[in-house]
Amino acid sequence: TTALPEGYIIRRMEKQDYEGVVDTLAVLTTVGNVSKKKFDSIIDYWNSNEFEYRGSKVNLYNPHVIVDTIKNEIAATGNIIIEQKLIHDCGLCGHIEDIAVSSNHQGKKLGKCLIEKLRNVGFQAGCYKVILDCDEKNTMFYEKCKFKRAGVEMQSRL
Amino acid sequence: TTALPEGYIIRRMEKQDYEGVVDTLAVLTTVGNVSKKKFDSIIDYWNSNEFEYRGSKVNLYNPHVIVDTIKNEIAATGNIIIEQKLIHDCGLCGHIEDIAVSSNHQGKKLGKCLIEKLRNVGFQAGCYKVILDCDEKNTMFYEKCKFKRAGVEMQSRL
Ligand SMILES: CC(=O)N[C@@H]1[C@@H](O)[C@H](O)[C@@H](COP(=O)(O)O)O[C@@H]1O
Ligand SMILES: CC(=O)N[C@@H]1[C@@H](O)[C@H](O)[C@@H](COP(=O)(O)O)O[C@@H]1O
Repeated sequence: TTALPEGYIIRRMEKQDYEGVVDTLAVLTTVGNVSKKKFDSIIDYWNSNEFEYRGSKVNLYNPHVIVDTIKNEIAATGNIIIEQKLIHDCGLCGHIEDIAVSSNHQGKKLGKCLIEKLRNVGFQAGCYKVILDCDEKNTMFYEKCKFKRAGVEMQSRL
Repeated sequence: TTALPEGYIIRRMEKQDYEGVVDTLAVLTTVGNVSKKKFDSIIDYWNSNEFEYRGSKVNLYNPHVIVDTIKNEIAATGNIIIEQKLIHDCGLCGHIEDIAVSSNHQGKKLGKCLIEKLRNVGFQAGCYKVILDCDEKNTMFYEKCKFKRAGVEMQSRL
């Protein structure tokens, strides 16, 4: 596994990460109006959502951040959602979502460290596979993180 | 929206659907060893997983079945998982999963009815988008159900 650069750590997202997470997610897409209060209530909801799988506790939501502990900044963020299925022997499927690396911290392999961490969270929970959807232009990056092309993402919007 | 053929209904999955659901899912992929006890506990878990979104209750898991009420058989099944995000104004994203139509009931547009229903469940919950992953060969079918190609599904297995 890829080592984080000195001074960087990775951990579960916390309420104190509010500003840095919102700023970092803006690199990925529209964030909109995320108040501190709404952020806190989503963190509470995410933290409360545990279930049991083959005798162990699993978190359904696993939001993570990479923190630059020297500058005290959020450098990257991403989540893995763990879905309980019936198929594959009542198996679990991990969905990696909302990966963003702050523009101030790019070129340091933080994206790769983050994906490796989230993938490990998924496999440690017991997932039989971990999937994600990305733009064609990012497939090479994910191939370096042990992912392979699988299918086509289809979407519907109102 | 597409009408179901006479004698067919669509509703949330229930414990009594055990055998028909397991048989129907085998059309899609490996089902493995799903005992009645494990099935029931997953139905309980899925039913218990509610959260609040903009003042309404939303089910995180929304497993559905199409039932042939004349033959008393499960004809199709599918789920939509509703993910709470931070992006898009603390928005919701619907993930359609595990769509299967029993081979005895194909050619009746049940797949289209099921997708329309699950898509509606997602939009009624407040999703800003509904997504799914499929094989290249199924993209035409989903295009007829108001879905468009979006990205590439990448997967990782141990
Ligand atoms: C691996 C990864 O991070 N994929 C993201 C997905 O998680 C995110 O939700 C979406 C937002 O795009 P949107 O604003 O068009 O919904 O972009 C990408 O598909
Ligand atoms: C829209 C739809 O139904 N897509 C399904 C997905 O939900 C299912 O989980 C997977 C199982 O394949 P697997 O056995 O290779 O994991 O097949 C397809 O991608």
